[in-house]
Amino acid sequence: MPTQLHIVTLLTDFGLKDHFVSAMKGVMLGLNPDLHFVDITHLIHPQDVRSAAFVLGQAYPYFPANTVHLAVVDPGVGSARKAIAVSAGGQYFVAPDNGILTYVLEREADALAYEITADHYFRKPVSTTFHGRDIFAPVAAWITRNISLFQFGPQLENPVRLSFPQVKKVRDNLIQAAILSVDHFGNLITNLKPEDLPAYGGGAAGTCKIVTPQKKEIKIVVRNGSAASTLGLAAGSVIGVVLGP
Amino acid sequence: MPTQLHIVTLLTDFGLKDHFVSAMKGVMLGLNPDLHFVDITHLIHPQDVRSAAFVLGQAYPYFPANTVHLAVVDPGVGSARKAIAVSAGGQYFVAPDNGILTYVLEREADALAYEITADHYFRKPVSTTFHGRDIFAPVAAWITRNISLFQFGPQLENPVRLSFPQVKKVRDNLIQAAILSVDHFGNLITNLKPEDLPAYGGGAAGTCKIVTPQKKEIKIVVRNGSAASTLGLAAGSVIGVVLGP
Amino acid sequence: MPTQLHIVTLLTDFGLKDHFVSAMKGVMLGLNPDLHFVDITHLIHPQDVRSAAFVLGQAYPYFPANTVHLAVVDPGVGSARKAIAVSAGGQYFVAPDNGILTYVLEREADALAYEITADHYFRKPVSTTFHGRDIFAPVAAWITRNISLFQFGPQLENPVRLSFPQVKKVRDNLIQAAILSVDHFGNLITNLKPEDLPAYGGGAAGTCKIVTPQKKEIKIVVRNGSAASTLGLAAGSVIGVVLGP
Repeated sequence: MPTQLHIVTLLTDFGLKDHFVSAMKGVMLGLNPDLHFVDITHLIHPQDVRSAAFVLGQAYPYFPANTVHLAVVDPGVGSARKAIAVSAGGQYFVAPDNGILTYVLEREADALAYEITADHYFRKPVSTTFHGRDIFAPVAAWITRNISLFQFGPQLENPVRLSFPQVKKVRDNLIQAAILSVDHFGNLITNLKPEDLPAYGGGAAGTCKIVTPQKKEIKIVVRNGSAASTLGLAAGSVIGVVLGP
Repeated sequence: MPTQLHIVTLLTDFGLKDHFVSAMKGVMLGLNPDLHFVDITHLIHPQDVRSAAFVLGQAYPYFPANTVHLAVVDPGVGSARKAIAVSAGGQYFVAPDNGILTYVLEREADALAYEITADHYFRKPVSTTFHGRDIFAPVAAWITRNISLFQFGPQLENPVRLSFPQVKKVRDNLIQAAILSVDHFGNLITNLKPEDLPAYGGGAAGTCKIVTPQKKEIKIVVRNGSAASTLGLAAGSVIGVVLGP
Repeated sequence: MPTQLHIVTLLTDFGLKDHFVSAMKGVMLGLNPDLHFVDITHLIHPQDVRSAAFVLGQAYPYFPANTVHLAVVDPGVGSARKAIAVSAGGQYFVAPDNGILTYVLEREADALAYEITADHYFRKPVSTTFHGRDIFAPVAAWITRNISLFQFGPQLENPVRLSFPQVKKVRDNLIQAAILSVDHFGNLITNLKPEDLPAYGGGAAGTCKIVTPQKKEIKIVVRNGSAASTLGLAAGSVIGVVLGP
């Protein structure tokens, strides 16, 4: 008996005031009434694929095997951009091929991408402006009904990946890093990794503190405050890190 | 065996910061623990029945048969306005009788409305200010437990319908139309239908483009931008359409 | 056979744009795929434990027996504040021990609190900044799998309770009360109870009206308007009530 798949997450830039998100859910429930939806967020800034990729990369590792992640931030809807279905790390991803899966593809060595071309799985007629409802949502629902990814279309060798700012050694005691994202609390998520800061000891910098939750990433936080406001930094800001003493 | 009903959508102006929406869900789960909730939106502007009707009209067609739609934007709560339960197009609707179901009633020829009067289905005591929790939510949950609509009260011949601006021919080559709604992306949804624009070819008007997703409605969009800002239009704006050439 | 528990509510200050809430849900679904989540709110002002306590106190009574309420507004994360699991009124609560459960503890005479110390129930490694995901969420999920609260740690005699402003009699015909909260519609929720206003008759004060939904609490409302704006009051405001005539 095939594994029972039923969790579907949604990540979009559709906002929360219109019918868009619920229309996608309605379409999926029509194909599989036993789905369990989890909204990752619908408040990605319109068409900000980079932030969408970041948030998805932060969220998906916490979901159980066979979860289907539906990620629709799609400035190229109606153009020639491809639609893809990806299996990676035991989970599934359905999205436009525009880099929104960058973190998944970077991290999961077993990632396999397929171009979605088999239009008998689509909702008809297919709108020119809302592939989320007519292509991506139905494909996500069909995956939960055990359709294999190769049935949606041919394998795709090189799905689009965004390039991200790299940590650079400027001088022996100076490295250049970047702010990847600012969260709801004003914490600054950097592209630094613990190994970039060999003498790192969790010390304080001014009123700010550098923390490494789970030793995986380096965050700059102000306890019970906003590091973003305190330091005047935003996503995309470049920072210099002076290595001790 | 009766059909298993279990999807309940919610559409309100209750916002997302208070306990209101969750109180309704708690009450429903107490009556039927197997419900699957889908939030359409809770960000309708307070008491804007017109927008609520519009968003519900856009969302409900995508849901499967037997879905129960609970729509509570209710400026008349505590007054003499009626409460209604409606079956239409194979789905169910529970709402105040204030026009919020206008699009459903216009579109579904088989619509049957019942006034909700049988107070043994209500949560007691019934609050004077929160019928969503004490009347509408329990009735929605009872529908999923296969209570027939006539058990809630007598049939209602003429449920309230809002009047909407009509497309008007002003001159041979000029029609007057209206903006019904502005979505999250700033796209303008008009009351124009493709048949109103006989020479229509998807052409561009200035930097704006007119699109007809699924040939059903006419939208004015700016690709990757906001038509609302570009044109300075809002819901309720009246526009003139000059027919070519 | 033990009761089947499966409803889990969430109340946080995590906002809706990041991955935080979904990471908690993913962790819980990994432990119990049959959960039904209800979001109470994620829009508590960052670290406002007082408001969180208020909203939770308003929401939980409407949920059925065995619901698990996960409440994470946690300015003390990473400090010495305790984590607690509480059974009260037939329901369960998992939260930091910072007063967020004040209304539950005040109201439910059978409340029993346990300190959460048994770290084999935690997600490892435990982040220093996100106990919601690594401690509170897993414990909530284990409760739905029928782990008894005493298995998480020792009973706690005096969980933290916030003190709330009391209604005070200033003179024979004057009482001092306070605004506890302002809801989405601008209605003012007071700490007055109907018995505080012996001559109370639902009368109007200026353009404002005093209402007692369900005879339990006293609200000041402006029909189809905002009492908060009309009167210039906010949560924390102190008001004087002149007893008639």
